[in-house]
Amino acid sequence: MIENSKLEKYIVKSKNKFEDLLGALIEIPTVSMNPANKADILAGAQLAASYLADIGARVEILETKGNPIVLGYLHIDSKAPTVTLYHHLDVQPASPSKWHHHPFQFTIKNKELYLGRGATDDKGPAITALMAAKFVAEENIPINIKFIWEMEEEIGSPNFEYAIKTKKENLTTDSILVSDTIWISRQKPAIPYGLRGLMTALLTLTTGERDAHSGLTGGAARNPIGELCQIIDHCYDPKTGRVKIEGFYDKVMSPSIEELKEYENSEFNIDHFKKDHGLLSLRTEDTLQLIKAIWCEPTFEVHGITGGYLDEGIKTIVPHFAQAKMSTRLVPNQNPMEIFQLIKEFVKKENPDVEMRLEATLTPYLGEFDGPYAQAARQAMIQGFGVNPVFIREGGSIGPVVTMQKIWSVPVVLLGLSLPEHGYHAPNEYYDWGQAAGGIKTLVHYFDLLSQMKQ
Amino acid sequence: MIENSKLEKYIVKSKNKFEDLLGALIEIPTVSMNPANKADILAGAQLAASYLADIGARVEILETKGNPIVLGYLHIDSKAPTVTLYHHLDVQPASPSKWHHHPFQFTIKNKELYLGRGATDDKGPAITALMAAKFVAEENIPINIKFIWEMEEEIGSPNFEYAIKTKKENLTTDSILVSDTIWISRQKPAIPYGLRGLMTALLTLTTGERDAHSGLTGGAARNPIGELCQIIDHCYDPKTGRVKIEGFYDKVMSPSIEELKEYENSEFNIDHFKKDHGLLSLRTEDTLQLIKAIWCEPTFEVHGITGGYLDEGIKTIVPHFAQAKMSTRLVPNQNPMEIFQLIKEFVKKENPDVEMRLEATLTPYLGEFDGPYAQAARQAMIQGFGVNPVFIREGGSIGPVVTMQKIWSVPVVLLGLSLPEHGYHAPNEYYDWGQAAGGIKTLVHYFDLLSQMKQ
Repeated sequence: MIENSKLEKYIVKSKNKFEDLLGALIEIPTVSMNPANKADILAGAQLAASYLADIGARVEILETKGNPIVLGYLHIDSKAPTVTLYHHLDVQPASPSKWHHHPFQFTIKNKELYLGRGATDDKGPAITALMAAKFVAEENIPINIKFIWEMEEEIGSPNFEYAIKTKKENLTTDSILVSDTIWISRQKPAIPYGLRGLMTALLTLTTGERDAHSGLTGGAARNPIGELCQIIDHCYDPKTGRVKIEGFYDKVMSPSIEELKEYENSEFNIDHFKKDHGLLSLRTEDTLQLIKAIWCEPTFEVHGITGGYLDEGIKTIVPHFAQAKMSTRLVPNQNPMEIFQLIKEFVKKENPDVEMRLEATLTPYLGEFDGPYAQAARQAMIQGFGVNPVFIREGGSIGPVVTMQKIWSVPVVLLGLSLPEHGYHAPNEYYDWGQAAGGIKTLVHYFDLLSQMKQ
Repeated sequence: MIENSKLEKYIVKSKNKFEDLLGALIEIPTVSMNPANKADILAGAQLAASYLADIGARVEILETKGNPIVLGYLHIDSKAPTVTLYHHLDVQPASPSKWHHHPFQFTIKNKELYLGRGATDDKGPAITALMAAKFVAEENIPINIKFIWEMEEEIGSPNFEYAIKTKKENLTTDSILVSDTIWISRQKPAIPYGLRGLMTALLTLTTGERDAHSGLTGGAARNPIGELCQIIDHCYDPKTGRVKIEGFYDKVMSPSIEELKEYENSEFNIDHFKKDHGLLSLRTEDTLQLIKAIWCEPTFEVHGITGGYLDEGIKTIVPHFAQAKMSTRLVPNQNPMEIFQLIKEFVKKENPDVEMRLEATLTPYLGEFDGPYAQAARQAMIQGFGVNPVFIREGGSIGPVVTMQKIWSVPVVLLGLSLPEHGYHAPNEYYDWGQAAGGIKTLVHYFDLLSQMKQ
């Protein structure tokens, strides 16, 4: 059991240490998107490894085909349960002209705002978790903590699955905690327990060797753009988003009444949503329907159509080739390969000349909405921040979550600490001491609750 | 009446002269598409004017906002009928690396093939007509011949209508002859009497301020590419080409049984058509149906869709903007502005947020299929080449034909002399003495027949 007063004192005392660790880490520009930052990535990994060693963890730098992954093993006791913490230490690029301070110069404002690229995504939450683990280790709370600090998250984790699989045995765990998500608002902590999957594909149609003259051939010549438009229109109704292909929704699991109630209390705001994403109008203005559409329902999307004449004005050619870039976001229990096959067969029947080529898949993820780990996360959040968190889903994918769930088949809890105003991927990104302090408290309680769980 | 033996002798005697005139004209690179050739255009106009003066015509170089138009007035007798001859003396660009000889160095092969850019399009036919006019003038056949030699045809005649209208009175005529079209084959002369019109427009839809993340917004965010695909699919069936908008076909004049019979005898060859235009498959393999589709029926065409992600691979954005470039080829008696309004209203009803903007219109043209001028052309062709020509339509537009028909409201006869193998717009373009000699004979007979017509 945690002595609360001791924890409070630890947190207050840790502020300087926290700032030192976070500051030094932010000042290394670990931009994974830019090959010029390769040396910074390696320096960042070294620094992070030293942080883990400093709290007593055994450390390993796992090489991959790309950037390394920093692994840490803390306080190993084979009789105690194990939790694995996932964070990433690579960051988005930052163009200094858009920042008030230099993005890679750690700046503290009002004694509690921590500015710099990566402050909230995801270095701040990583150091927060580190400080919580340190306390747990010092207090000998019976739990093993393993660390996975990735350095390619911002480029889609291309080497994560292959590399981490090689450590499947070493990283055996009872549950995983990922801290890389955003609350609804400072007053409304959110714990995402579901992520949509993805299937992306190219639809290609070639009807000639070169573009033809529409005066000489128009009427007889096939138009591949027109034919792709027809297929797309037959696949889905863009006004409602509803997919028209039979069987597409067969495996979709509808959210329970409890889940819908939770969403209704999520304080999701349509006006903010529109403003945040620059949307002029929406398919629906009903909040719950909108939440379902982006969290719990699959989509059909066309991202672009190439082929034909795309420069200024109009050239009256008949295109000889067209390609539609499409995807579907998928929800539990849809299977990306099954959906690919379903659409491919539909397209073949509609238009046998159209080739459909798979590009990528991501499996949808559904974690605990109300199991023991969800309960523990909820309790810990209430202890840490004094607020009951809302359990939500997210419309996008977090590749590593799905990967880790697949490898270890254990619960993954997405206990993020970032706020919307912190500015994920934006200029003047920051993190704050309030979220760090509450985060340390939350995580210590969470680890403590896990330590008491029967395995 | 023409003394045939005298005409034959004149033609044989004229060969050297013909070659001198054509050669000198070809060696001036009158490329209207390239501003660097402006001086050549002017030199070409001067040379052409001297040719007209040499056969006794009064000559005028009509300045326009762009390139000049050379006008000639020959053998004016107010009691005799008048025919106006339209040719163009500007040419397509030519890249020497693709030519066996330099494109602007006149080359004679086998004593009867005349190589060089513009040889068949349209300098050869122009000099052919000049030689016919010279004979007619020398023989005092009672007909007035007016010449319009344009120098911007290859760039869409942007200044033709405005400039030529200023000469409406001087260029009063009883009929017009345009010689800038291609036969079916050397054995099958073709006289086009119908041209399709055109209406081009842009369909634009903006649903956001910037592309959005399809994970975060997909399902709720509208997809403007999807919505344009829907409209396009509702506008027409790309499999058949059939337009689905009510009223679209209301004013379409079906070809008569006589016209269809003529088309059936046109020796139109589907395999050649496919090969010539690089088409892998067609909407129909039935010859007559295909001919109708490209000559007598209107089309709906999408030339390209911009917006969204168009680079390599797939970026899973929700586009915020999409624009479709579209056109319809139109047939008599469709009116381009009426068709624009019809489609615009249909689109508005389908999707009120889609803007439809008119780009350009061209009125369809239908000349004589069986009137006195068509009869005269047929007779003259039989005299000149010993073959009964086929009367066809063309699927494209020839702007000046429509313009001149509008200004003078007189019959326009499209009596071309080029063969498919001559290579319009292609490397190693040529013209040949056979077509020139037959052409002079044909035109002399044609002018003679016109001179006997009652006005």
